Amino acid sequence: MSRRALLGWIGKTAGAGALYQAMTSLGFAAESTHPGTLNLGSTPKGASVLILGAGLAGMTAAYELRKAGYKVTMLEFNQRAGGRCWTLRGGDTYTELGGATQQCQFAEGNYINPGPWRVPYHHHHVMSYINEFNIPIEPFIQVNYNALVHSTHAFGGKPQRYREVQADYQGYAAELLAKVSNQGGLDKALSVEDREKLFESMRHWGALNESAEYKKSYEVSLRRGFAIPPGGGLSPKPQASVLMDRSELLQSELWKYIVNGQDIEFQSSIFQPVGGMDNIAKAFEKRVGDTIHYGAKVTRINQSDQGVSVEYEQQGVAKTAQADWCVCTIPLSILSQIPVKASSAMQSAIRAVPYAASVKVGLEFKRRFWEQDDAIYGGVSYTNLPITNISYPSTKFCDKGKGVLLGAYVWGANAFEFTSLTPEERVKKAVEYGKKIHPQYADEFDNGISVGWHRVPWTQGCYGMWTEASREEHYENLCQIDGRLVLAGEHASNLPAWQEGAISSAHDAIKRLHQKVVSTTT
Amino acid sequence: MSRRALLGWIGKTAGAGALYQAMTSLGFAAESTHPGTLNLGSTPKGASVLILGAGLAGMTAAYELRKAGYKVTMLEFNQRAGGRCWTLRGGDTYTELGGATQQCQFAEGNYINPGPWRVPYHHHHVMSYINEFNIPIEPFIQVNYNALVHSTHAFGGKPQRYREVQADYQGYAAELLAKVSNQGGLDKALSVEDREKLFESMRHWGALNESAEYKKSYEVSLRRGFAIPPGGGLSPKPQASVLMDRSELLQSELWKYIVNGQDIEFQSSIFQPVGGMDNIAKAFEKRVGDTIHYGAKVTRINQSDQGVSVEYEQQGVAKTAQADWCVCTIPLSILSQIPVKASSAMQSAIRAVPYAASVKVGLEFKRRFWEQDDAIYGGVSYTNLPITNISYPSTKFCDKGKGVLLGAYVWGANAFEFTSLTPEERVKKAVEYGKKIHPQYADEFDNGISVGWHRVPWTQGCYGMWTEASREEHYENLCQIDGRLVLAGEHASNLPAWQEGAISSAHDAIKRLHQKVVSTTT
Repeated sequence: MSRRALLGWIGKTAGAGALYQAMTSLGFAAESTHPGTLNLGSTPKGASVLILGAGLAGMTAAYELRKAGYKVTMLEFNQRAGGRCWTLRGGDTYTELGGATQQCQFAEGNYINPGPWRVPYHHHHVMSYINEFNIPIEPFIQVNYNALVHSTHAFGGKPQRYREVQADYQGYAAELLAKVSNQGGLDKALSVEDREKLFESMRHWGALNESAEYKKSYEVSLRRGFAIPPGGGLSPKPQASVLMDRSELLQSELWKYIVNGQDIEFQSSIFQPVGGMDNIAKAFEKRVGDTIHYGAKVTRINQSDQGVSVEYEQQGVAKTAQADWCVCTIPLSILSQIPVKASSAMQSAIRAVPYAASVKVGLEFKRRFWEQDDAIYGGVSYTNLPITNISYPSTKFCDKGKGVLLGAYVWGANAFEFTSLTPEERVKKAVEYGKKIHPQYADEFDNGISVGWHRVPWTQGCYGMWTEASREEHYENLCQIDGRLVLAGEHASNLPAWQEGAISSAHDAIKRLHQKVVSTTT
Repeated sequence: MSRRALLGWIGKTAGAGALYQAMTSLGFAAESTHPGTLNLGSTPKGASVLILGAGLAGMTAAYELRKAGYKVTMLEFNQRAGGRCWTLRGGDTYTELGGATQQCQFAEGNYINPGPWRVPYHHHHVMSYINEFNIPIEPFIQVNYNALVHSTHAFGGKPQRYREVQADYQGYAAELLAKVSNQGGLDKALSVEDREKLFESMRHWGALNESAEYKKSYEVSLRRGFAIPPGGGLSPKPQASVLMDRSELLQSELWKYIVNGQDIEFQSSIFQPVGGMDNIAKAFEKRVGDTIHYGAKVTRINQSDQGVSVEYEQQGVAKTAQADWCVCTIPLSILSQIPVKASSAMQSAIRAVPYAASVKVGLEFKRRFWEQDDAIYGGVSYTNLPITNISYPSTKFCDKGKGVLLGAYVWGANAFEFTSLTPEERVKKAVEYGKKIHPQYADEFDNGISVGWHRVPWTQGCYGMWTEASREEHYENLCQIDGRLVLAGEHASNLPAWQEGAISSAHDAIKRLHQKVVSTTT
């Protein structure tokens, strides 16, 4: 019996708990890699569900509930599905709160994802639908050793290469540890055998020389890059590059940026849908779009023992939708402004979660100078400037036409400040800051577009910001089925801000709802 | 004046040396990112060049020399161009030395690159032609945090996840260094300010807790992965994962594998041509294929003051080709078996370089189980078994059909042993070893193909293995223009085994040759 067959058998006969144990003991990751295929089982005939919000959580619920036999209707505020799973392309128009309208000027094929832009390999719910719907994906380059790290307080404000900071920081750390170990400083902490292995490993890890020193050398340049790289024939011989000063490097704090790629959410492999994140939304919409009422602004959510009744406005006309059950995926930032018939515990929970401020600015340039001049293909440069990073497109490499950068990804106080500006001023500011990292901005900038999430009419914020305290007090109350109503979305998950949170939240909500429907009806 | 314009001006007026200085001081990488565009200038009318070998070095020379006005003829042993820039696809046939013939059974669209398979971002000569010829490329995933690292001597032979080894090794190292620093162990080595920054940075870098300990925690799981990852709604709460034992990890030597992605040749971003490496060869062939005589086996290289005369066999017929000059790109492993009229210094150099042993095995499976079961999308798993690694395809992610792994990449003594086997035995062996890492091999294996480079008729080895001593003694003699003959190829470069070495070698050789032609003729 193969491992796969064995696992199938354990799952069927002994249930999920035993399967989880078996998978762990067989060396699998704890998570299932294909959680997308729900099997809700038989459905009480004729049961209907009203779903509020056609973002990924809402459409997941719609797709799975309809598959299980439910009658599904959706209400969506926008004229498109997807919510924050959203892509802006040339010709697209976006009007923010306050009335400012931008028309995206990007060239054909260029785009920016104002919301989610990455799908990590372990976001199994998202990957599962990508798989099921055959959505083309491509690697998102998160870590680029040739990208830049920059601080206005260090190296005279001159951007440094990621690879140089990475190699030198690790090399100096390894050197210190190896030396201390050699001088007896770890005699209490480690056994002789472990000290020997540590020493050996530090030499390997830090590219240290025979004497366990981190010094300018050919070997070290094989990490940080050469002053003159190895070439062909009788071209100049390779020359090792000069190391950064250890103290300057430590004080620069640029080491902050070199662990980002180790974060579980940013680790390789990580993906993006080819052509824009909203291709995920479109794949769902293709399957459930016929159930969606677009341009429907929910104004009140009522429920009784008999069913739910939701009031909404569509093209200025007040309407009511009714169903047996309701899955509400409206962001709490909006839902907290709508009368909802629910327990006071849920009401409190709905009001307990502030939404993060974030701003993205997409900048289009006349050419992909970052590739052509700087050999930066994809990846992210980091800075202590308010723009926080510049992200280079992980697609259409070596394209000769215009190119679009994520020119700013602003958070916190800076994001509030950016949001308070006009869209044009935000773009201008992103260009001004970015120029300090890429002087080519001056000549090459063409046009830009910006989204300040607190001015996005249908979310008024970026994502639900839970604290440990608010989660302790409110999270379960938010997620409990309240009569005939259950909430879903990234805000109703332990993985806020991510599409995985939204979809896994929808799965959990509809599984519980289905159990209740079955037990209520039979 | 923009930085770019400034550099252009410096380059034009002050020459390459000043340009190099200026680029370095402006923070550019030392290397030009577009060295592909040669400008050899005016060519003595009617000068002819015979190029031996239509690999990347030969075709680069042909392309650039013809652009400059030379009459170019090429002789190529194989019936195709590209040399080691080679891709095997379903239906392809390959006969090795000894006569064994394999027909590749791969499904449509699947392939293996027996030779080079990666193009690092800083291989500017290769990238430059990719750019000029519009060859579609896609990211090659080198580092995959969810891939496996494996040693038969550690963890009971059970493969571990890269992310767990990476996080724990770095975490434990950071903890040791932070503790030593706290206990005064670095007081002599570092200033107070630097010790403080080091401590702060170690906490950040190692995901240490408030007390600078590396302990099982939510934060640490954000690096190494969770036992139960954060999910939606009321699904089980996230659970931190258990750390590896420090001593077991140190003794395992699995830390050897986690620095590979930091090597300059493997750093992100790194690419592959979409559909197979030989798309680079094909792009060259499209431009110079009309100059190539295929199936031409060179048997003697003669030269005099008047020109070069090369004897070769084509379909059993002895022929002679003549030209004013000759660029020979035949691998030294072959060239050393052919009479060459050259100085004894060059003759010695030609015989001084042994060729590396290497074997690649491509395995096709019924399905992409590494993605479907294990969430490994691209990247490399490492093992101390003779196969050394398993590399997962960085293309067609989530494809439902058959998939091809690089199932073995064997070096040194193991490679000689593998090469001595029949192709079928090599494949069988790769499957047997691989099963220890992926038990799914047992059920899912479909077919395979193998290339042992010492049995490749036209190279009889993988690449030229220089030592420091042999390079000191022979390298310049190998590369000097000898009368009317100049050598090029990865063997005539400081970057052996890489396409960049081959192309940059060709550039250097033809630049020098052109100077000589001009000075000889005028």
